[in-house]
Amino acid sequence: MRVIFNEEMKAVSANLERMAELVSKAMNDAGSALVNADLESAQTVIDKDADLDALEASTIDQCLTLLARQNPVATDLREVVATMRLAATFERMGDLTSHIAQITRRTWPESAIPQEARETIVAMIDFLHELSGRLTTMVANRDVKMAETIIAGDDALDKLHEEIFALVEGENWHGTRRQLIDVVLLSRFIERIGDHSVAVARQIVFIVSGFDPTKKPEPDKDTVIA
Amino acid sequence: MRVIFNEEMKAVSANLERMAELVSKAMNDAGSALVNADLESAQTVIDKDADLDALEASTIDQCLTLLARQNPVATDLREVVATMRLAATFERMGDLTSHIAQITRRTWPESAIPQEARETIVAMIDFLHELSGRLTTMVANRDVKMAETIIAGDDALDKLHEEIFALVEGENWHGTRRQLIDVVLLSRFIERIGDHSVAVARQIVFIVSGFDPTKKPEPDKDTVIA
Repeated sequence: MRVIFNEEMKAVSANLERMAELVSKAMNDAGSALVNADLESAQTVIDKDADLDALEASTIDQCLTLLARQNPVATDLREVVATMRLAATFERMGDLTSHIAQITRRTWPESAIPQEARETIVAMIDFLHELSGRLTTMVANRDVKMAETIIAGDDALDKLHEEIFALVEGENWHGTRRQLIDVVLLSRFIERIGDHSVAVARQIVFIVSGFDPTKKPEPDKDTVIA
Repeated sequence: MRVIFNEEMKAVSANLERMAELVSKAMNDAGSALVNADLESAQTVIDKDADLDALEASTIDQCLTLLARQNPVATDLREVVATMRLAATFERMGDLTSHIAQITRRTWPESAIPQEARETIVAMIDFLHELSGRLTTMVANRDVKMAETIIAGDDALDKLHEEIFALVEGENWHGTRRQLIDVVLLSRFIERIGDHSVAVARQIVFIVSGFDPTKKPEPDKDTVIA
């Protein structure tokens, strides 16, 4: 049984790593497409989102089969359950990258980012680029140190998100109302990708250590109101 | 084994119904607090969100124990796995009601809704009230017909969300930029609660019928861009 479990779990893990890679690529591509007003690249992100949906479905099917046939317990059970949650989170992250790409597509050939918001949005996109690399490394290696880095780093993204609110309310803002909406939503989507990455990091800690860091009481990270 | 499974599953289902009731109440209270600029009620919604977080954690613990000890298969397994997903969705819905309440609290004693957006936002809150009743009935009775009603009804909420975009971009809008941000975010949070309710409805269909309606290819329902 144990050997079969390990074999089947390896296949599920490969699916999950593939999802992490696809999400990571979508984060990079949606970010670059936004900054460069690149329609083709934005469209690719939107089209590719279906791959993540399909991979989520097949990962969950595999997990159900594993649970039914192998009756995993302890660490093995924890891994299967965490894998289902991770697949759902990656699917959601894919949706968010697609939302970013949809804004890029709608405003094209204009950039969705007016000059006065450019610096902050570019900083957020740079953050996503770095995060995407960390995410794949963490998932592939079950790297708890990297998970801690991701969890600790999220505050910086929240700060940038708050900067956006101050900026669009401030004197230097000259964008249209539509641009204001787009910038606020873009910032919100990016901030949510950060939150989901933290959730992924916590699941990785949970798989490796059995300790669920979400149970440590702490303020809701997904607070959009300064 | 079977008897023990049924006993333990009953306890988990009771937890899940409790979560549905708490979410339903939070949807109603956050909506009323917003419409009436009721600080006390908004604060209660924010404070009560911790109960949902705790219930999610204990529901998932119970499910892990059930999976390890009872090795459920077929319908039973489907129910346990769906229960874990539902608990996570309810927890997220609680966060969203808390976000709505936070906006109510921040703008208090002013209403967060300027006059020109009032009609549409009130229509969205009315929608939430109706949805909250449907949600508890559906979860308590595993009511597939009600699930289908919820899934089919979500388009109406999406339309209201689109109305908000048209409204804040239109000539009749006279609110401040902060009000614009608040109205767009409120609308987005309400629309997301609708999406999550659809996800809950799909899981109920999945528990009862074994058919996963999420696998039917269809456009991403969570599209915020008109």
